[in-house]
Amino acid sequence: MPKLDVAILGATGAVGQRFIQLLKDHPWFEVSEVIGSSRSAGRTYGEAAHWVLDGNPPADVAAMTVKALDDDFHSPLVFSALPKEAAKTRELELAASGHVVCTNASANRMLPDVPLLLPEVNADHIHLIDVQRRRRGWRGALIANSNCTVMPVVMALKPLVKYGIRALHLVSEQAVSGAGYPGVSSMDMIDNIVPYVPGDEDKMQTESRKMLGAFNGESINLLDTVVSATCTRVPVVDGHLVNISVELADEPALTSIIDDWDRYEAPASAQNLPSAPAYPLQYLHQIDRPQPRRDRMAGMGMMTSIGRLRECPVLGYKFAALSHNTVRGAAGCSILNAELMAVAGYIESFRSAELALET
Amino acid sequence: MPKLDVAILGATGAVGQRFIQLLKDHPWFEVSEVIGSSRSAGRTYGEAAHWVLDGNPPADVAAMTVKALDDDFHSPLVFSALPKEAAKTRELELAASGHVVCTNASANRMLPDVPLLLPEVNADHIHLIDVQRRRRGWRGALIANSNCTVMPVVMALKPLVKYGIRALHLVSEQAVSGAGYPGVSSMDMIDNIVPYVPGDEDKMQTESRKMLGAFNGESINLLDTVVSATCTRVPVVDGHLVNISVELADEPALTSIIDDWDRYEAPASAQNLPSAPAYPLQYLHQIDRPQPRRDRMAGMGMMTSIGRLRECPVLGYKFAALSHNTVRGAAGCSILNAELMAVAGYIESFRSAELALET
Amino acid sequence: MPKLDVAILGATGAVGQRFIQLLKDHPWFEVSEVIGSSRSAGRTYGEAAHWVLDGNPPADVAAMTVKALDDDFHSPLVFSALPKEAAKTRELELAASGHVVCTNASANRMLPDVPLLLPEVNADHIHLIDVQRRRRGWRGALIANSNCTVMPVVMALKPLVKYGIRALHLVSEQAVSGAGYPGVSSMDMIDNIVPYVPGDEDKMQTESRKMLGAFNGESINLLDTVVSATCTRVPVVDGHLVNISVELADEPALTSIIDDWDRYEAPASAQNLPSAPAYPLQYLHQIDRPQPRRDRMAGMGMMTSIGRLRECPVLGYKFAALSHNTVRGAAGCSILNAELMAVAGYIESFRSAELALET
Amino acid sequence: MPKLDVAILGATGAVGQRFIQLLKDHPWFEVSEVIGSSRSAGRTYGEAAHWVLDGNPPADVAAMTVKALDDDFHSPLVFSALPKEAAKTRELELAASGHVVCTNASANRMLPDVPLLLPEVNADHIHLIDVQRRRRGWRGALIANSNCTVMPVVMALKPLVKYGIRALHLVSEQAVSGAGYPGVSSMDMIDNIVPYVPGDEDKMQTESRKMLGAFNGESINLLDTVVSATCTRVPVVDGHLVNISVELADEPALTSIIDDWDRYEAPASAQNLPSAPAYPLQYLHQIDRPQPRRDRMAGMGMMTSIGRLRECPVLGYKFAALSHNTVRGAAGCSILNAELMAVAGYIESFRSAELALET
Repeated sequence: MPKLDVAILGATGAVGQRFIQLLKDHPWFEVSEVIGSSRSAGRTYGEAAHWVLDGNPPADVAAMTVKALDDDFHSPLVFSALPKEAAKTRELELAASGHVVCTNASANRMLPDVPLLLPEVNADHIHLIDVQRRRRGWRGALIANSNCTVMPVVMALKPLVKYGIRALHLVSEQAVSGAGYPGVSSMDMIDNIVPYVPGDEDKMQTESRKMLGAFNGESINLLDTVVSATCTRVPVVDGHLVNISVELADEPALTSIIDDWDRYEAPASAQNLPSAPAYPLQYLHQIDRPQPRRDRMAGMGMMTSIGRLRECPVLGYKFAALSHNTVRGAAGCSILNAELMAVAGYIESFRSAELALET
Repeated sequence: MPKLDVAILGATGAVGQRFIQLLKDHPWFEVSEVIGSSRSAGRTYGEAAHWVLDGNPPADVAAMTVKALDDDFHSPLVFSALPKEAAKTRELELAASGHVVCTNASANRMLPDVPLLLPEVNADHIHLIDVQRRRRGWRGALIANSNCTVMPVVMALKPLVKYGIRALHLVSEQAVSGAGYPGVSSMDMIDNIVPYVPGDEDKMQTESRKMLGAFNGESINLLDTVVSATCTRVPVVDGHLVNISVELADEPALTSIIDDWDRYEAPASAQNLPSAPAYPLQYLHQIDRPQPRRDRMAGMGMMTSIGRLRECPVLGYKFAALSHNTVRGAAGCSILNAELMAVAGYIESFRSAELALET
Repeated sequence: MPKLDVAILGATGAVGQRFIQLLKDHPWFEVSEVIGSSRSAGRTYGEAAHWVLDGNPPADVAAMTVKALDDDFHSPLVFSALPKEAAKTRELELAASGHVVCTNASANRMLPDVPLLLPEVNADHIHLIDVQRRRRGWRGALIANSNCTVMPVVMALKPLVKYGIRALHLVSEQAVSGAGYPGVSSMDMIDNIVPYVPGDEDKMQTESRKMLGAFNGESINLLDTVVSATCTRVPVVDGHLVNISVELADEPALTSIIDDWDRYEAPASAQNLPSAPAYPLQYLHQIDRPQPRRDRMAGMGMMTSIGRLRECPVLGYKFAALSHNTVRGAAGCSILNAELMAVAGYIESFRSAELALET
Repeated sequence: MPKLDVAILGATGAVGQRFIQLLKDHPWFEVSEVIGSSRSAGRTYGEAAHWVLDGNPPADVAAMTVKALDDDFHSPLVFSALPKEAAKTRELELAASGHVVCTNASANRMLPDVPLLLPEVNADHIHLIDVQRRRRGWRGALIANSNCTVMPVVMALKPLVKYGIRALHLVSEQAVSGAGYPGVSSMDMIDNIVPYVPGDEDKMQTESRKMLGAFNGESINLLDTVVSATCTRVPVVDGHLVNISVELADEPALTSIIDDWDRYEAPASAQNLPSAPAYPLQYLHQIDRPQPRRDRMAGMGMMTSIGRLRECPVLGYKFAALSHNTVRGAAGCSILNAELMAVAGYIESFRSAELALET
């Protein structure tokens, strides 16, 4: 089966590198074009990118010539790791011109007709693409994944929506890779924490409600709840941990909640995708888990780990949730979203592949 | 003026060392006896103690012979940095036999007749000593300081008690020195955080209510509120930061609260003590402060730094507070408590000094 | 093909855990017995071991009951991660009673008839086992791997022995996992380094000469050179980096040395072993590599990475070498040694497997 | 006594901030002008500088308006924390126009008529200023301090020059503050070290020979020795540790060397300066010292700590030396150099002060 050509926007940055790392040996997709800033364009990827992940970039990608953002791309599927400003109009242009764009950028996440997709949580939101295409007259599409700190929150809460989420109080301890490279100065992160992450508190308070909301056929009804988020930065490379307190209208027993988590499965359409973990989440019974370094790679970095469920004297329930912020929380989620797009038939040129998969 | 002899229990441990460091050149008190475990007793302090603070122990203390816990002590004033179990009965025995014991141990903190003292917050609780002496027939006394994570919380909240504290939600990011030495393994603290600190969540939920409570002449009425605490450990040497959300019955403007903090002064009896900072707290206007490494030494480590006051969609108000956990939060607070005891006339042998001070 | 039963001594410690992790899904060996201290014996491994590696212990091992060190073991192959004192006589007893013991402990490394084996470097030293068996009348055997900091040194120097190593100057920057768990206190490793690692300087100065020495049919002639080692501890979880300066009698060009490294292959007998990396070492051309976090997992943690070769004004040549201290430098090397023992026919009960492999 | 006005070039950077911090309450000098980049010029210092040291900038400096580098300055004494390129010509211009410029920049350090001054090591090199003024026709002057990693090396070696230094082998473990702010990315410094510091190896190999050289009345004769330096970066905020091996022509006993260090005093002209430590260096007898976090603040950050003296099988002697890289190794040394200039009569406008000091 021939693989689908893929372009990576913002390929030399930290998230761009993660895309390239995760797409190595992908069964359906193949990196075919790497796009960088004007400073990088024209050089080989190996020269242009200061590789910050483990090891070295794959040799075939290292040999590619980096293209500029305003070049034309032939790849039907585009992953975007662009900075916010660069993403804003270019992603819309590419979708308009027929590309399926899966973006990790925040610029267009809250547009009413852009699905904010996490397959295990809201795979049905994908059908917002039909609305998007109809209204905008696009053949391509634009779907987004959420802020990396929102992921473990919505993953852990999805099984609890049925109890009625009345209030949500979040305090994050976030890894430095969330700020890219060079990102956070080591002068701020040795023997220190920073109790502020620009922009993330707002994103947690809005994106979580969109992702846990319901698709009504035309748009997403935000989850009707109140959310308070505090975001802090800690000296950890990868893995965002969120301390979550939640008020539930029904008052389930703690054991019921753990059962809900243990039994939670992704929607049928999101199972068996190449990048899907066997289980989307796990509850850890050790009293001092989850921990970033020890649990971020669960399920190849795509699983959310939950622990420390107990009563909260103020809101009723509290626990901690963790996921890998640049795998599950960024590039890995975009790739999973693209896989869902493929099996759902939204990538025209990949229909045959999809059919092949189904038989 | 002759100084008052002081004994340090648990002198070789991390908090014991901080007592010795802070008492160097103290104007009223002089370390005269150092008490350690049976393993340390009989050796010089310099040999027995693996000094973990900066530099080296003071030469005079390094030359002292370490005494055993069941030896007799001549010092009228005793500072205790004992482990919980060792503290439980020995502190009571010493108080019964005439010593004024200022303890950092948790064992006896919640006894109804033991004041849990933070001079800038509840200096009047000191008079619980009269009840203690009357009931127990002691000439000595036992006063405690709270858990180190409670300090920044009660310091920041004291000026807000007048608004009616309905609910309190706390998430801490705590330094490793809170666990002593060797304490937390470096295998747990490089590229990692641990979302659990044994025992601290309970202490935060109970001790905060005692410290912010009212002395009714016979006992302390706990503050009538509900508290939820989550405690986590981060790779920081010194300085506990707490993310605080609070519901206030009155609904003051944010600016009023900052005014309250800016104008807050310690009670008259607690001002001008040798270890008292010029101001007990400061509000920092930079959006990314307080930070442990940069703010823990404010006011020689005795000041609490507050920042990021903003609305909390769930509870109304949220902010961050920080103080140095082994200075303000442990040894420094015990010393300040002893200074308050001295000026309040509770250390019999020190009356003359007190009178000298007043004139 | 039935797998060979394996016992792990010191199974609950940090290196013991690494053995268990690396032996999961091993094609030839299967963990059958886990042995711990008297405190652990009788409990399940899951209860007894505080797992410090990523994730959780394999479920089948977690369910095993931990045995005591003086119990009898049925496994023909024994891996030892014992503390030095415990290892000293017990390893000899087990070898005497027929077990093939591959040890990571330092106790017996320098015994004249114990091979200090690193297959890619000195696979031929394995025949010292014949001497060992003859002299001691053993059916079993005892082979050791070296100190974890010696590994990257001898791996990088082996291809240069032909030039005549006149002097060797080593300064290490070692990860904390080398000290086990809890090992190094976090109070010593945040914003700090410790310029001393107990015992390691001596080991580097002696073990390197044994490993690079020549087997003369009866014993090992130590490499005739002078070695100076300085060992320091840095805040890194895994991966020892050594700054190496070397004086070579011949004076090869820098490019010749890089060629030697690029072309270096393990001896034939050590190739194609299940745990052998495709290449034993790699030279990295980036000016700021090797780095512990980015290069320690090269070749599944079994490869040595070298970089920064340049002239040394004092000794002629200098460069940096790195390998993973608990994979390549401990458990992984012991396993590789056992694999070499198997294919070399020294594990009697595994002969058939060996033959199967050869056909 | 009126204080001397001082200008700080590059005042908003990390070293500039350290100048401002150390000059607070200086008895002779007073910060009067702060100079920054064109981006900072015209704003108040408080707005322009992202303060990265502890606490906040002094209020009076925070209120000053930042000047541009090509403005005129009235301050007779100028401290330069400029980047290399900016320093190159501007420092010469300022010296030509009558300012005494004490620079921390590397641009002009190796000019033959610029003294590379560390008062405790080579106070007599100050008279190179006479040559400088004569040749260049300057009324002002330019003196430099060395690279921050060179300081602990020359400080520790100065007392050993008398034994004949034949060879010097250096391996540093350097703090991140040496790279300024933001400087080293936290992505490179969590669970990692970087075995390369751009430019520093060359500086160590050349500047050390100039500082330990002899002033012959017209120029500096470099110390006749061979130096090999390897520089690495470690996750430490402040404090450079250097592992030093040295070959000495005479072969003193280890105890003689420790005696030399214990008895070492600064030259008479460099004693009693306001920023001079009581002793320029200390030998620590604990086996695991010096350590950056625990020893960098010895002597208010101006003292060098030495430890672990022992035999080196290759070069004869080895030990570790540490000093604070932004205090002793940068701003603090520049200030001490300026104090020496003042008492030596090289700052014309400060003659009266000097006289006052002598009486």
